[in-house]
Amino acid sequence: MNIIVDAMGGDHAPREIVDGAVNAVKEFGVDITLVGVESSVRAELSKYDYPKEKIQVVHTDVIIGMHEPATISIRKKKDSSISAGINLLKEQPQKYNAFISAGNTGAVVCASTFYLGMLPQVERPAIGLVIPTLKNFAFLIDVGANTDPKPEHLLQSALMARVYAQKVLNIYDPRIGLLNIGAEESKGTEFVKETHKLFLESLSNFAGNIEANEIFSGRCDCIICDGYVGNVVIKTSESLMESALALVRREVKKSPMSILGALLMKSCLRDIRKHADYTEYGGAPLLGVNGLVMICHGRSNAKAIKNAIRATVREVENKVIDHLIAEVG
Amino acid sequence: MNIIVDAMGGDHAPREIVDGAVNAVKEFGVDITLVGVESSVRAELSKYDYPKEKIQVVHTDVIIGMHEPATISIRKKKDSSISAGINLLKEQPQKYNAFISAGNTGAVVCASTFYLGMLPQVERPAIGLVIPTLKNFAFLIDVGANTDPKPEHLLQSALMARVYAQKVLNIYDPRIGLLNIGAEESKGTEFVKETHKLFLESLSNFAGNIEANEIFSGRCDCIICDGYVGNVVIKTSESLMESALALVRREVKKSPMSILGALLMKSCLRDIRKHADYTEYGGAPLLGVNGLVMICHGRSNAKAIKNAIRATVREVENKVIDHLIAEVG
Repeated sequence: MNIIVDAMGGDHAPREIVDGAVNAVKEFGVDITLVGVESSVRAELSKYDYPKEKIQVVHTDVIIGMHEPATISIRKKKDSSISAGINLLKEQPQKYNAFISAGNTGAVVCASTFYLGMLPQVERPAIGLVIPTLKNFAFLIDVGANTDPKPEHLLQSALMARVYAQKVLNIYDPRIGLLNIGAEESKGTEFVKETHKLFLESLSNFAGNIEANEIFSGRCDCIICDGYVGNVVIKTSESLMESALALVRREVKKSPMSILGALLMKSCLRDIRKHADYTEYGGAPLLGVNGLVMICHGRSNAKAIKNAIRATVREVENKVIDHLIAEVG
Repeated sequence: MNIIVDAMGGDHAPREIVDGAVNAVKEFGVDITLVGVESSVRAELSKYDYPKEKIQVVHTDVIIGMHEPATISIRKKKDSSISAGINLLKEQPQKYNAFISAGNTGAVVCASTFYLGMLPQVERPAIGLVIPTLKNFAFLIDVGANTDPKPEHLLQSALMARVYAQKVLNIYDPRIGLLNIGAEESKGTEFVKETHKLFLESLSNFAGNIEANEIFSGRCDCIICDGYVGNVVIKTSESLMESALALVRREVKKSPMSILGALLMKSCLRDIRKHADYTEYGGAPLLGVNGLVMICHGRSNAKAIKNAIRATVREVENKVIDHLIAEVG
């Protein structure tokens, strides 16, 4: 198995990316192809002791910035680490199994769609995200690829989410919910109401609307929404957890008793943070394109990259693309 | 000052509503008119010692359920506690100053719009919510009144939010952000892009797009979005805080050391919960209608009702409606 990793993508590239890749090679025995500025990547690699034959470097000195427009990956910067990495996957599907990037999400979505093309019967890509719930995990889709979808696109996302939940998350019979602001079918925007109707007609396992206050409850295994709303959900969650932690830190410091209490709770708090920590689950799969593409948080550290590689290995082993073609196509 | 309170609205009505109203009378010296089933309301009132002349009861035995369609308030149930309460406000504006309900939100929005009418230059109502941030407070609007707005409706919400932030939250020069999934104007849905353009043309103090991961940071004082997205934001936050607390409780129980730590942190945790507790801020103002209407969470307890009454008293004292008419109209 050989996984292509964008060495230049993300706020801490190439340092954290290379670190994560080296650890993945050592822990999972996978082969990695790093795409990026060869001198910088080799400089990072030289810090580590690892089986040399397991990591290749493909050079490009074109980098897409985190805030450049998405289409730059297929217009001006066709040799970027993102475009070059995706083209490797496209051109040598026998050699390479997947592509991972913590870089400009829009550019990854755009280049993946353009170069790899779509799966049969799927019109638009969607980014799924495995989120922790009180019961186990849920799969939220779309968290940012398609901000103005049609109801059919959400149906395609739902069908893909079901396959992903079954094959990767091992949920035998996933319950699929449509994110809405009320349980009744009469609730929500015109778009959500139309989508609800389509789901009722065309989707088995449809558990109806799910309100945002049930996202983390574990009531549904797959939660379907448009990319704008899904993105707001994950960023709101991220923000709230960070603000809550900042608030706890500020308040704890005000009393010696609280400081002692916090120390005694340390290992417990660590377990909780681990459960809620995005770096534990690695990246977010870009579903719908004809190839395995994993998108990581721009802030990814080495651990997040390593875990994204582990999640990708699981996707390759579980033949996610074959199942998507067989069951959605 | 006389505030009309829907005694039958909410999951814990009339018990918690009456309890909150009695406490508000005692603490703030305000007059309250309770609208609801007189026998039930009087039975609750009889539990308390309070200045009798400060609380009136207006009888109606028609109640709108939490999940009935919004339009029932103006079609079949014109005598409901919601419709009757709003009509009191409309018909006797010299006597009554505001209406508060923890009942069916859709029905309150619908009846307020229909009976009170809109303010000049405002086409649609919007629900604002005061949220705690790391700095102080922010005002998020709309959290559920108008799910399919036009860009002009968001501009009207922004103008109303500015007045509310200035007059009620005492923010001299509020920074106004448009909720979006990226900082650049090219980001987001077609609707948000159009709205961004309109804000640039027509709104002073426009601080540009704000991403959901900055909602609780305090960067913007007013955060503008459509009612569907705003509703998802507040319900996601609610759900995440509850799930995080449930997780903490579960993990703490696993070790005696953590239990001791949690006990030592008790007062600190209480302060934090207080900061994040929606019941501290009371209700959410329904802006745009021609009268002061406050919507409370369906789960409101007595404390939430009392604090909503306090927030409403502040709105009346600050002549919010007059300022809205003067500055938006």
